[in-house]
Amino acid sequence: MDRRSFLKTSALGGSAVAATALAAPAVAQGKRQLTMVTSWPRGFAVLDDAATYFNEAVNAMSGGDLTIDKKAPGELVGAFEVFDAVSSGQADLYHSADYYFIGQHPAYAYYTAVPFGATAQELTNWYYHGGGQDLHDELGSIFGLKSFQCGNSGSQSGGWFRKEINSAADLQGLRFRMPGLGGKVLGELGASVQNIPGGELYQALSSGALDGLEWVGPFADERAGFQEVAKIYYTAGFHEPGSGLSCGMNLEVWESLSDQHKAIIDNATKATTAYQLSQTLANNGAALERLQAQGVKTLQFPDDVWDAYGAASKKVMDENMGDELFARTRESFETSLASSASWIQKSDGYYVEQRTRVLGG
Amino acid sequence: MDRRSFLKTSALGGSAVAATALAAPAVAQGKRQLTMVTSWPRGFAVLDDAATYFNEAVNAMSGGDLTIDKKAPGELVGAFEVFDAVSSGQADLYHSADYYFIGQHPAYAYYTAVPFGATAQELTNWYYHGGGQDLHDELGSIFGLKSFQCGNSGSQSGGWFRKEINSAADLQGLRFRMPGLGGKVLGELGASVQNIPGGELYQALSSGALDGLEWVGPFADERAGFQEVAKIYYTAGFHEPGSGLSCGMNLEVWESLSDQHKAIIDNATKATTAYQLSQTLANNGAALERLQAQGVKTLQFPDDVWDAYGAASKKVMDENMGDELFARTRESFETSLASSASWIQKSDGYYVEQRTRVLGG
Repeated sequence: MDRRSFLKTSALGGSAVAATALAAPAVAQGKRQLTMVTSWPRGFAVLDDAATYFNEAVNAMSGGDLTIDKKAPGELVGAFEVFDAVSSGQADLYHSADYYFIGQHPAYAYYTAVPFGATAQELTNWYYHGGGQDLHDELGSIFGLKSFQCGNSGSQSGGWFRKEINSAADLQGLRFRMPGLGGKVLGELGASVQNIPGGELYQALSSGALDGLEWVGPFADERAGFQEVAKIYYTAGFHEPGSGLSCGMNLEVWESLSDQHKAIIDNATKATTAYQLSQTLANNGAALERLQAQGVKTLQFPDDVWDAYGAASKKVMDENMGDELFARTRESFETSLASSASWIQKSDGYYVEQRTRVLGG
Repeated sequence: MDRRSFLKTSALGGSAVAATALAAPAVAQGKRQLTMVTSWPRGFAVLDDAATYFNEAVNAMSGGDLTIDKKAPGELVGAFEVFDAVSSGQADLYHSADYYFIGQHPAYAYYTAVPFGATAQELTNWYYHGGGQDLHDELGSIFGLKSFQCGNSGSQSGGWFRKEINSAADLQGLRFRMPGLGGKVLGELGASVQNIPGGELYQALSSGALDGLEWVGPFADERAGFQEVAKIYYTAGFHEPGSGLSCGMNLEVWESLSDQHKAIIDNATKATTAYQLSQTLANNGAALERLQAQGVKTLQFPDDVWDAYGAASKKVMDENMGDELFARTRESFETSLASSASWIQKSDGYYVEQRTRVLGG
């Protein structure tokens, strides 16, 4: 029976009064609004795009019964305060990049990206089918959180510089923005590393407070305007080869949701990853061409700089191995990554090599 | 107000009788079941996994108001009859691979895979952000369908052979299963190409009716058991570098759905892609190792065979250019692919190359 024929039947059957009397509370009872704090200024490409897609998907799929009120940094808490706000119950959920929270626990690095780690697809393979999501939940339970992957900003560019990096020595003393364990690796190599929220980066670079920075990739970086104040852009980086975005929900709030609303949240996070990662990767190529047309020079780091990144990365990862959950997370992640990568190299990798050779590239 | 406190209030407020009297029809009114026909036998890895994930996501997110009754080949119609069944209204929607329907229109090839075409990520980039989904809808409207990407089975293996392919001459006369435009390419190269539903392939290969076949990749192929009857496995193929799965819904059925149920269907298809593609890629590496342990020899086609595939592919693609919608679809697809690939090569591609070099691989 569809809605229209039910309404007709009800009215004709004489129960119209009872139906009307119940209509208001029946609508009101199911409605619930959750407050979501994010680390992204409104309109920031890629990152706020993911938060917005998730937000709107939940609203639409619940028919308005479960809505999300999204708050940008400063509207309720600061960009890096979202984790504590949700853990404490001040807000219901956050959308952020979990490696901002390695101060709370170093294993949070894995849910965004680690140096020499997984591409976006490899991360997703581990997350859903290699034990990643269970470990994310175990970690979250320490802080009263239920966690989800919710988007991915792809392989992050090596970043924006004012001078070329021709050897690892050129990193000495460089005032550079890079969060997560990647930032600790640059620190090992002598850089003066800072973590600054995305909304404050343009100012820091243009004032000279920073010598350089990495943000996301061409599509997001162009919108942020970094090409106006730096002209050298390294396209590949060691630090975040596929950066997962996360949604963390207060665990008590999560447990209070109906099975239907839990399914909506869960699938909205997955739909966000499919929709928003492809948005980013569909737009990066054209954005890079526009950056080049504005005088940006694109480069790759030379092999010996990659070697230095590799040695320092191993050291930084090993320093955290005293923590049991970090060690177990690393083992799970690296096992999955090795298996994913072995197949991808024999299929996609070899195919793309042949496509480039046969068609020209 | 949450559900529990509403029920308490109702009971205490004396309206319990009215609430009870309405409970049954109120539940019944919104309920709707759709019949989904698939091209996959129940339990077939990757393909039926995608259909099942989608099915269960819709059921859960709608709270049971919109449920899907999934039917395998033979339960209502045959594996390749699902398109006509949905177009005619005999079933409500299908889950399949749209390149099975190039007889209906050659442009359907693009929504699964075309020779020397897109990887899974490149296809998704085009589909959601390069015009693909709009073209899919335009094509579907000819047949009374609303179409969605709903899963991806990744880069398909070159396939199973009983003898090595050392030159293009070895393809002459080979009785081989390959659907879509890829099959037409093998036909150009002298193979005797057949399209046979997945559920009948093991029998065809073991009886000798086929000399070889391609199906999906290690995880799906192992479950199908092909390693029992052929021992040579080519891991990369030219024909389907990232095969999209599709859901096609009868357009009148689609238009009869509420906005909420439309949002649930739409996001369930995206969540299926995120969940199921990663399942496939997370499992292929380990499955390949098990196949090798059973005596399967893995190879790559030599360069001159790839060159022959390239020349024949161009010919087959060009033969369809008389159709205006095919030509427009090809133009849109190739423009998006070139842009996606240019960035991915400079970021993920270069990164994986360096990761392999630095860490060993």
